Amino acid sequence: MPDLHTRIAASFARQGMMTTFGAQLAAVAQGRVEIVAPILPGSTQQQGYGHAALTFALGDTAAGYAALSLLPDEQEVVTAEIGIHLLAPAVGDLLVARGRVVKPGRRLIVVQSEVFAVTDGVEKQIALLNGTMVPVAA
Amino acid sequence: MPDLHTRIAASFARQGMMTTFGAQLAAVAQGRVEIVAPILPGSTQQQGYGHAALTFALGDTAAGYAALSLLPDEQEVVTAEIGIHLLAPAVGDLLVARGRVVKPGRRLIVVQSEVFAVTDGVEKQIALLNGTMVPVAA
Amino acid sequence: MPDLHTRIAASFARQGMMTTFGAQLAAVAQGRVEIVAPILPGSTQQQGYGHAALTFALGDTAAGYAALSLLPDEQEVVTAEIGIHLLAPAVGDLLVARGRVVKPGRRLIVVQSEVFAVTDGVEKQIALLNGTMVPVAA
Amino acid sequence: MPDLHTRIAASFARQGMMTTFGAQLAAVAQGRVEIVAPILPGSTQQQGYGHAALTFALGDTAAGYAALSLLPDEQEVVTAEIGIHLLAPAVGDLLVARGRVVKPGRRLIVVQSEVFAVTDGVEKQIALLNGTMVPVAA
Repeated sequence: MPDLHTRIAASFARQGMMTTFGAQLAAVAQGRVEIVAPILPGSTQQQGYGHAALTFALGDTAAGYAALSLLPDEQEVVTAEIGIHLLAPAVGDLLVARGRVVKPGRRLIVVQSEVFAVTDGVEKQIALLNGTMVPVAA
Repeated sequence: MPDLHTRIAASFARQGMMTTFGAQLAAVAQGRVEIVAPILPGSTQQQGYGHAALTFALGDTAAGYAALSLLPDEQEVVTAEIGIHLLAPAVGDLLVARGRVVKPGRRLIVVQSEVFAVTDGVEKQIALLNGTMVPVAA
Repeated sequence: MPDLHTRIAASFARQGMMTTFGAQLAAVAQGRVEIVAPILPGSTQQQGYGHAALTFALGDTAAGYAALSLLPDEQEVVTAEIGIHLLAPAVGDLLVARGRVVKPGRRLIVVQSEVFAVTDGVEKQIALLNGTMVPVAA
Repeated sequence: MPDLHTRIAASFARQGMMTTFGAQLAAVAQGRVEIVAPILPGSTQQQGYGHAALTFALGDTAAGYAALSLLPDEQEVVTAEIGIHLLAPAVGDLLVARGRVVKPGRRLIVVQSEVFAVTDGVEKQIALLNGTMVPVAA
């Protein structure tokens, strides 16, 4: 049985979207996952800020892997629903998304992610996501 | 004053994210916008389906431009919050997102998008988004 | 086996909250349920309009029974999550909530409700709810 | 100018719904408000638990007053949208809702509430709400 980080890193590496965004798996723990990514020119909206979909992608993926970290190896998770509140523009040196499990469950896992923009080492929260993950057979 | 389609197409063209996803502005009307995109290898999640963030990006952007289509030229919109219910995997020849305004307002615009996967010309709904757009100075 | 209306009416009658609000089950069909209620003095917020929780209660309950209408007799549903967009104040002669199933499923049922205020027979939409119901053993 | 607690208590007392639910304003601070309520027979769903609308009412109201606590006297707030994740049945001696401001703003205030069921003095979280409040003229 692979360790937790190895297992999640293997799944993360198969996500074409994470490669497109230049995202990296920064930290993995039971019920908590952190992802970082730059704001690439190909990830912007019309004003040059990071697109809401970039922030969403990082937050959703961090939350999904936080849920997966509590499940046995033969299971995957899919997002059933997730909502995002955008608090500030996605501008800075890089984005950090921290996902965590709010309430584990056999059928539903309630998750939350906070996304921060980092400028000169200072973090500013730019989004809050809340959603529901569902375990499925791998 | 540019016509509605020209104005929205110009904004759409400035979105690096839409270029990254190979997305195209398919239709523009007062309060309604349609966007189409393929499921590129760089837009996938770990099982090879379209990533939730691709579906989100198309739905959020279609909804945002639907809101913008009701505003004067000197205004832009930003997403305040938006939630997505995922109904089926994003698999097929291409995705179509149709955004519309549910309730216009001076300060808040409530929007909705439906996203469909199209396979051999047959549409299947894969997501429903509901959110709030806020007008801001351009 | 009781017919659909009888079965849902029996469950509705056990809801103390629906009695408190003076709510009535107005229509039941496969995947669609309608509930009506007055705006009682005991259902108001601080400005004298119907409280958001009244609108929520009617929309959530209509959506829940819409989901239940698709399930076998030995099952109940519970709300996993639901969001409400409030479009206008709850003021008028009565409120009407119409719930429907957007996407049925064995494990999750995605639902939607529209809530209207009726004044002199004219309906005005005051809210849109979107949520997820989960079947459970009765 | 009345102090913060007096001002919010006065508004709270005008809410017919809070009286119906037997709810009380338990604590008020800048950006944080706590409300407690019993689970009355008139507040139940069909299985005898507290109705989701009770949990919603307490969470939404606590979040709204948390937002109001940051605004000048001549303003009120209304809920633009709010979503609730239900984590466990509303059963116990009483419910406690704690609302707080996540992100203040001139036009939008992002809020969150946690709702707990208390049994023999032990708290169990039963819901998480996230939403958007809008300041309006009183």
